[in-house]
Amino acid sequence: MSVSTAAPVQPIWRDISGALPVLGSDVTVPLVTGGEVTYAALDYAASAPALQRVWDDVAAYAPYYGSVHRGAGYLSQLSTDLFENARRTVAEFLDCRADDQLVFTRSTTDSLNLLAAALPADCQVFVFETEHHAGLLPWRDAHVTYLDAPRTPRQAVETLERALAARDPRGPALVCVTGASNVTGELWPVRELAAAAHAHGARIVLDAAQLAPHHPVSVQDLDVDWVAFSGHKLYAPFGSGVLAGRADWLRAADPYLAGGGASRKVTRREDGGVDVEWHDSAARHEAGSPNVIGAYSIASACKALTEAGFDTLVAREQHLIEKVKAGLAEVPEVRILSLFGDDAPRVGVLSFVVDGWNSSHFAAALSAEYGIGVRDGLFCAHPLVRTLLGSDPQTQGECGAPEAAPGEKSLNAIRVSFGAGTPDEHVERFVTAVTELVRDGARWNYRTEDGRCVPDTSA
Amino acid sequence: MSVSTAAPVQPIWRDISGALPVLGSDVTVPLVTGGEVTYAALDYAASAPALQRVWDDVAAYAPYYGSVHRGAGYLSQLSTDLFENARRTVAEFLDCRADDQLVFTRSTTDSLNLLAAALPADCQVFVFETEHHAGLLPWRDAHVTYLDAPRTPRQAVETLERALAARDPRGPALVCVTGASNVTGELWPVRELAAAAHAHGARIVLDAAQLAPHHPVSVQDLDVDWVAFSGHKLYAPFGSGVLAGRADWLRAADPYLAGGGASRKVTRREDGGVDVEWHDSAARHEAGSPNVIGAYSIASACKALTEAGFDTLVAREQHLIEKVKAGLAEVPEVRILSLFGDDAPRVGVLSFVVDGWNSSHFAAALSAEYGIGVRDGLFCAHPLVRTLLGSDPQTQGECGAPEAAPGEKSLNAIRVSFGAGTPDEHVERFVTAVTELVRDGARWNYRTEDGRCVPDTSA
Repeated sequence: MSVSTAAPVQPIWRDISGALPVLGSDVTVPLVTGGEVTYAALDYAASAPALQRVWDDVAAYAPYYGSVHRGAGYLSQLSTDLFENARRTVAEFLDCRADDQLVFTRSTTDSLNLLAAALPADCQVFVFETEHHAGLLPWRDAHVTYLDAPRTPRQAVETLERALAARDPRGPALVCVTGASNVTGELWPVRELAAAAHAHGARIVLDAAQLAPHHPVSVQDLDVDWVAFSGHKLYAPFGSGVLAGRADWLRAADPYLAGGGASRKVTRREDGGVDVEWHDSAARHEAGSPNVIGAYSIASACKALTEAGFDTLVAREQHLIEKVKAGLAEVPEVRILSLFGDDAPRVGVLSFVVDGWNSSHFAAALSAEYGIGVRDGLFCAHPLVRTLLGSDPQTQGECGAPEAAPGEKSLNAIRVSFGAGTPDEHVERFVTAVTELVRDGARWNYRTEDGRCVPDTSA
Repeated sequence: MSVSTAAPVQPIWRDISGALPVLGSDVTVPLVTGGEVTYAALDYAASAPALQRVWDDVAAYAPYYGSVHRGAGYLSQLSTDLFENARRTVAEFLDCRADDQLVFTRSTTDSLNLLAAALPADCQVFVFETEHHAGLLPWRDAHVTYLDAPRTPRQAVETLERALAARDPRGPALVCVTGASNVTGELWPVRELAAAAHAHGARIVLDAAQLAPHHPVSVQDLDVDWVAFSGHKLYAPFGSGVLAGRADWLRAADPYLAGGGASRKVTRREDGGVDVEWHDSAARHEAGSPNVIGAYSIASACKALTEAGFDTLVAREQHLIEKVKAGLAEVPEVRILSLFGDDAPRVGVLSFVVDGWNSSHFAAALSAEYGIGVRDGLFCAHPLVRTLLGSDPQTQGECGAPEAAPGEKSLNAIRVSFGAGTPDEHVERFVTAVTELVRDGARWNYRTEDGRCVPDTSA
C-alpha cells in the first residue's frame, strides 16, 4: 500500500523493549507476599513461550486445517502443500544441502532417537559426558565412547581427536555434540569438532536444541552431517521437532515408525505373510498422520526469527547476558557454573548455585516472592552437573530439609534462561531478586509437597 | 446465574443443524465451474476439523503455557498440573482400570509402535489382514500371524479362536484389532474378540482411531488390555495420541525414547560407561518435553464429546449414515464396500466405487465442482482394499488415463467420512453430487499433476 505515515515503521523486534512479542507477556501471577505481578518466564531453555507471530499464523491456518497427503479436497491439498512448504522453509533456515532430508519428529529427543535407530551396523558413537540426556542416552545397542568433560573448547577438539584416532577406522562412526550447553549456555566448537570427525572418517550430528533459538545455524557452514532441534524451544510449542541432514543413513534404515504414510505398497504373500515396500523419502520415518500444525508453527518461527534478524537478536541477547552477569557478580555468594570459563561465549542460559541456599528453595522463592519462573535441578544432564558441582548431585533438594551450609557443596543448581521474547525488566527483576534474597533471606517459609518446593501457607 | 430467558438454552450440539461447532465450517473454496461454496469436509476418517471448543480451550491456555515437569515458576507448575490432569481426563474418558498407564504419544501409529517395542520376548502377534497399516506393520521382529478377512463378525471370532488354539500356549501373545474399520466403517466385535483372546491366554489391543470419535470406548467394559487412538481424528489436531492400558509390559520394556524425562538418574561408572535408572511410570516412554498443548487438546475433546453425550452423537451420526446410504442406493453404478454386509453397524465412514469411473477422477470432481473433500486411494489398508475390490489395487489412479470401463474392476476406491461436526447439508450435497456426476458426467476435464488428479485449466 502507498499510504505514508509520519511515524517510521517499527520493526517487529522493537515491540516490547526490544523483545519479540510473545504470548503470555501480560499474564500476571499472585505473589505469596501479596498482590500480583507480570510473570517473568526465565526458563526458555526448557520451553519458550510462543511467538505472537507463530500463534497468529497457527490461528489463521487452523480453520483451513485438513487431512494431508491423500485427501482429494481443497483443504487437504492446501494442508499438504503447507506441510511440504514448511519442510522447505525449515531446510532453508538450517541452510541444508540440496540433497539433505528433513524429517519432522516430535522433539530433539525424538530426532536423536530416530538417528540412533538409523545407525549402520557396528557404528561407534562418541559423545561427551556433558551432553543433555537426549544426546547421551539414545544410542542403545551401539558401542558408545563417553568422553570426559573438557575444560576448554580446544581441549574438546583434542579429546575427540584422540578418541577417534584410537578407533578402528574401518567401521562407521558418529559424533554427537551440542551447539550450546543446556546447563551453562556455553557454545561448543562445532565447526572444529566437525572437521575433526570428518578427518577421522566419522560423521557428526549437532544437537541444536539450545543453539537454534539463539544463533543462526548453517549445516553447510558448520559442515555437520545432521542437525536436530525442537519447536518448543524455538517459540513454536506445538509438539514438533526436526532432524535434517544426510539422506543415505536415513534411506538405508528401517522405518522409524511402521505404518501408513511410510509404506508405499503392502501385499500379502502366498504363504500368508506380508510384503512391504517402504518410501525412500522423509515419509519413510514419518508414519501416521503428520503433525501439520506443529510443522507449520516451526516454519513460522523460522521465518519470524530470520525476518527479525539474528544479528539483532544476538546483540540484544548478549546485552541481557551481560546484565545478568554484572548483577550476579555483585553477589559473592553466587557461583555461575562454567566449563570453559566466565568469559566463554554463551547463549542466554546460565546455571548457578548460591552459598548457603538449597537451590530448590531459592527457585521457589524467586517464583513465590518475585513472580520469576526459573528451573532448579540437574537439567537432564546429570554427569555434567556432577562435574560442575564437584558433588554427587541429587535430583531434588528437599526444601524443608537442612540446607547446604555455607562452604558445603550444592546438591543441585538453579538455571536462568531467556531469549528473543525477554524484556529487560525480567532480567533486571531477576538480578534484584537474587540480590535481595541473598542479602535479606526469603520472606516466607517453604515446604516440600509432591516433590515441589512450595510456600508453606498453612501457618 | 439466575437470569431467566424466554428461549430455552440450546445444548452445544444443536449449534449447526445438530452438528457440534468446528473450525472451518464457514470456509469457502472456489469451484472450477465458477463461484465459491462452503467447504464440505468429508474426510474425517483421515483427520477431523478441530472442535471450536477444543480451539477455544487451547487459545485460552496458550498464554499460560510454560515449561513442564521441573520448572519452579508459576506457569511451569500450572502447565505440569494441566498435563497430568489431561492424563486423568483421558483415562476417565476411556474408562481405564485404576492401575492402567496412559502414555501420550504422537498418534495411533506411534502408540502401536510403542506397544510393539514393549512386547515381551517371543511374543506372538495375531492380526487380521484387514487392519490399517498402523495395526498391520509395527510388530517388527515378533512372529506375526496374519488372519484372512472374515465375512461376518462371528467368523472373525472363530478365525481368531482357531488361530489362537493352534499356538503354543506357553508364550505371550497379543491380538491387535480395530474397533471400526477405516475403510468400511464397520464395527468389529471387540468384546467377543477380547474374550477369545483372554480365553487363550493372549492379550488384546484395540485400535480405536476410528471408534473413539464416534462411540464411547470403555476399556473395562470391552475388557481390552490396551487402547490406542489419535487426537487429530478426535477433533484435536495438535499432534498427540494415546496408548492406555496394562502397566506391566510397559514397565518391563526398554524406554520407547531414551532421553531426559524418562531417566531418573544417570551416572558415569568407574569404567567410563554410563548407568541409567529409568522411571517406571508413563514418563518412562515420554522422554523429551511432552506436547502439553497436544495432550490438553485431547482432554478438551474428551470433555466436549462427553458433555455433548454419545447417545446424541451416535443417533445423529446414524441419521447421516442412513441419508448417505439411501441416497447412494438410488445410484445403481455405486457399490459400497463392505466385509460384513450392507446392514452391518458402522460409524460414519463409507468407501465405494463407481462403475465406469476412476476413483481419483471422481474424487477430484467432487472437490472441484462441488467443494466436497473426500479421499481416494487405498486408505493405508492395502490388503483389505484388495480383498474388497477383488483386484490388485493401485495406490493412485491416473485420472487422465483410460478409465475403468463399466464392469471392469476398480483400482482404488473413494471414501466419504463424517462425524460430530458434519451438518446435514454436507451429506446432502454429497448425495446430490454423486447422483449428478454419475448421471451427467463431470463438467470439466482433469489431468494428473504431481500425483494428484486436478482440473485441467490449461484449455
